[in-house]
Amino acid sequence: MPPIFPVLDMPQRLLMGAGPCNVHPRVLRAMACDVIGQMDPEMTACMDETAELYRQVFRTRNRHTLLIDGTARAAIEAALVSLVTPGMKVLVLRIGRFGLLLTEIIERVGGVVCPVDVSWGEVVSTEAVKEAIERYRPELLVSVHGDTSTTTAQPLAEIGALCRKHNILFYVDATATLGGMPLEVDAWGIDIATGGLQKCLGGPPGSAPITMSERAVEVIMARRHDEAGIRSAAPQGEGPVIRSNYFDLAMIINYWSAERINHHTEATSMLYAAREAAQIALEEGMDARFMRHARAGAAVVAGIRAMGLKVYGDDRIRMSNVTGVWVPEGCDPNRVRSLLRTEFEIEIVSSFGPLTGKIWRIGAMGVNAAKHKILLTLAALESVLASEGVKVVRGAGIDAARAAWEAYS
Amino acid sequence: MPPIFPVLDMPQRLLMGAGPCNVHPRVLRAMACDVIGQMDPEMTACMDETAELYRQVFRTRNRHTLLIDGTARAAIEAALVSLVTPGMKVLVLRIGRFGLLLTEIIERVGGVVCPVDVSWGEVVSTEAVKEAIERYRPELLVSVHGDTSTTTAQPLAEIGALCRKHNILFYVDATATLGGMPLEVDAWGIDIATGGLQKCLGGPPGSAPITMSERAVEVIMARRHDEAGIRSAAPQGEGPVIRSNYFDLAMIINYWSAERINHHTEATSMLYAAREAAQIALEEGMDARFMRHARAGAAVVAGIRAMGLKVYGDDRIRMSNVTGVWVPEGCDPNRVRSLLRTEFEIEIVSSFGPLTGKIWRIGAMGVNAAKHKILLTLAALESVLASEGVKVVRGAGIDAARAAWEAYS
Repeated sequence: MPPIFPVLDMPQRLLMGAGPCNVHPRVLRAMACDVIGQMDPEMTACMDETAELYRQVFRTRNRHTLLIDGTARAAIEAALVSLVTPGMKVLVLRIGRFGLLLTEIIERVGGVVCPVDVSWGEVVSTEAVKEAIERYRPELLVSVHGDTSTTTAQPLAEIGALCRKHNILFYVDATATLGGMPLEVDAWGIDIATGGLQKCLGGPPGSAPITMSERAVEVIMARRHDEAGIRSAAPQGEGPVIRSNYFDLAMIINYWSAERINHHTEATSMLYAAREAAQIALEEGMDARFMRHARAGAAVVAGIRAMGLKVYGDDRIRMSNVTGVWVPEGCDPNRVRSLLRTEFEIEIVSSFGPLTGKIWRIGAMGVNAAKHKILLTLAALESVLASEGVKVVRGAGIDAARAAWEAYS
Repeated sequence: MPPIFPVLDMPQRLLMGAGPCNVHPRVLRAMACDVIGQMDPEMTACMDETAELYRQVFRTRNRHTLLIDGTARAAIEAALVSLVTPGMKVLVLRIGRFGLLLTEIIERVGGVVCPVDVSWGEVVSTEAVKEAIERYRPELLVSVHGDTSTTTAQPLAEIGALCRKHNILFYVDATATLGGMPLEVDAWGIDIATGGLQKCLGGPPGSAPITMSERAVEVIMARRHDEAGIRSAAPQGEGPVIRSNYFDLAMIINYWSAERINHHTEATSMLYAAREAAQIALEEGMDARFMRHARAGAAVVAGIRAMGLKVYGDDRIRMSNVTGVWVPEGCDPNRVRSLLRTEFEIEIVSSFGPLTGKIWRIGAMGVNAAKHKILLTLAALESVLASEGVKVVRGAGIDAARAAWEAYS
């Protein structure tokens, strides 16, 4: 029979949006490795190596560091469904759409959300966190690190100590920052952190790294209930059953440990992708990588401003890897994005909720946090805006971005 | 910095176990395509094409046919958490370990399990299904199609009509049979069916196709609750909120439909893999593919018997793609498997629960449902068994398998 559709032939577009971004060619090649059996020694060795690589990416010594087979929000849900018991009070720092996602998941798994809200574009002060802890007395505090919907990054360094002092578990959704902005799981006292491959790690979406402290694992293992049909003689937990099988971290921890009790079939090709992405990050060095992303962000900001446009948000709390740009008056934001795609094969994106149609977001992440990609994106944006009748200072954006890249140290 | 671990270099092992099996080279290459933005027109077109391909694989006209981003059990959980409301009675046909997995998931999402049990190796008769429906009056009936733990396939063709008659929804877990054994979603009256790529479809684990009938979608959409931050003006459901965000089929249906409300970021490389695996299957033709798997199963069975070993289970209800073999007396089953791997780079697997150490399972699925792979596997098994002191008829297995392959029509 003839094929139903033509051979897959995707454009080689430059993805300067909020993720996914272009995947490192080494990661693409890694996925073409042959699949092997899930309990074969080379497979379990590959899982162990990947765990070790992500310990270094997360900057932690947590034994239980592994991958969730799904996109970034799969790991978020795994963390929350495994930690939150029905009726548990959870303090949620909400700086944008992804704080609302945490809320949503917590409510669905039976937790009681105690919100700390700020206007979009702002972050929560340590003082406000302190007050909220005293007011609500939560058992768990959760926060997004970098919320791409607002391009702001919640400062986290002081929150872990507060949580330890009040015996609160601390979960961080680092989907958009892992591998691009400093995230110090151990030094900041984070109990569980999750990420994704498709932002600063330069991999495809579909595998989500997670790391868990011993005290988090203790809480999770108290809810251990192995599924019938594969249950061993190991003692089961006294706590309430986790309301998901697929995201049951107690079983997934077993599967990734020497016990190796079969759970799902590890997504082999995505495991290869995750391993390669982490190797590449660690070969560059995490500090060098953070620096490169910060430099890229500085170049984008300088270029946008020199062009005569306004950057969204507060310089002091801005993510380095995604920059918000106010849509100038007199142009159609979707038409501009569409022209960038059709004329230049470059993608930038809109935002969500109150910012829909108000800002564009330009990402420079993973392999795209590179001087030439930023300069070409600015050149393309300038050309499109000019052709749409927006007053921009021709050539100024590129020059300023080049200078900012060079000047960054 | 030097790389932490050597370059990924996986063995090219022949995977004749219960899955994952070797991936078709075209599928491996498809994953190396560049990633594009999740709302780019080429991306949404690729999703639409993939949906159409899986309609043909599932033999259905169901509009809502899509992929769940996770391994096969992710789709199982998505189906069950989206259908089952707390306290709902669910009839579960349990013919092996994966029936227990369905039980486990239903209980975790709040359903009440009404089990129909048979001994491992047997299947549930239509008469027993009828009686159970009348006794329990369930709202949902769920069954595994082929349960690899027992290598048996539950006959399903008559159950859909029973379910329609009693106004019961009908869910089928076809993880291990999709693309290898006949599965007629529309003709058999199945409301939701789910699969995986890593068995008969010859893809890697990590993406799970699902199809849903209009009456199933109606039940699911009655539970529609879009997440805050991206909620549109569309009417929300009156039913109870689905207890998972990641597996909320109402939101995932939206994301895969013209509404395109952003949910997760579709796992792009796995989407490519799923699309390519379905194209390959449809180019071969589903009927030709079912025939090839049946032929492969017949060859394995003939070979094993001629060798002097005993095949597990009942010929009339055996899966064509996975064959159970009783471990002969006087040999260590794990040592035999290990020798097959180290001496021949061939993997076969053990089983679970009451069958652990009692049977081996030999799979011939996807690209591995091929004459030469079966013959080589039988030759290797014969050699290992002989060297371990088991009495086997030398050469007889291969000859019988060759003859059975040729004779099959």
